[in-house]
Amino acid sequence: MTAAVHTYVEGFAKSDAALIIDMYAADASLEDPIGTPVRHGIDSIAEFYVGAMHTGARLELHEPVRIAADYAAFAFTVVLDLGEGLKRVDVIDTFRFNADNKITEMRAFWGPTNMSGF
Amino acid sequence: MTAAVHTYVEGFAKSDAALIIDMYAADASLEDPIGTPVRHGIDSIAEFYVGAMHTGARLELHEPVRIAADYAAFAFTVVLDLGEGLKRVDVIDTFRFNADNKITEMRAFWGPTNMSGF
Repeated sequence: MTAAVHTYVEGFAKSDAALIIDMYAADASLEDPIGTPVRHGIDSIAEFYVGAMHTGARLELHEPVRIAADYAAFAFTVVLDLGEGLKRVDVIDTFRFNADNKITEMRAFWGPTNMSGF
Repeated sequence: MTAAVHTYVEGFAKSDAALIIDMYAADASLEDPIGTPVRHGIDSIAEFYVGAMHTGARLELHEPVRIAADYAAFAFTVVLDLGEGLKRVDVIDTFRFNADNKITEMRAFWGPTNMSGF
């Protein structure tokens, strides 16, 4: 599960949406950020990451990844450069995994107080 | 909610279990760490914190606290000194709050890979 989080960071570094989409189970859910409508199923999740890659987002992981039962939780900073100066968002994500080490649930904790440079 | 997290850290710094117990709603739940039996209700939660204070645990908060809708998520290191050398546990907690700013759900993400010095 820790290696999966590192792959996730690598996916953003390479702008490789497919690498990340392949980490998800077909019936997974995604809520990013918490409080917004939950996406259900791999097609909706794929759409989310293809869009995310267009922002050029990079993830700076703040180690260590926390592992508890079938969950991973990790703190990171998203760095965006949209040509208007560097923007940063401090985030904590949680992943839940199934027995095949695929993500079944992703939740992202961040909000307006965690954004800078916007 | 960010201030509540700071109060939580202060409660450990002062070994003041009552300060922390007062942050919880009467019907709250607590799962620490995830994968262990969930505690339900303020009496069981109080028992948990009175026990925790006996370990002399201190919390080093890794700012910023992430705030999303009615949730706070925060990364920290628990530092324990039981007279056998310093022990550390890297943890991410999530709190869910009600309209009275009381915690209704606490979940702690940590496991064996997050412990050092034991």
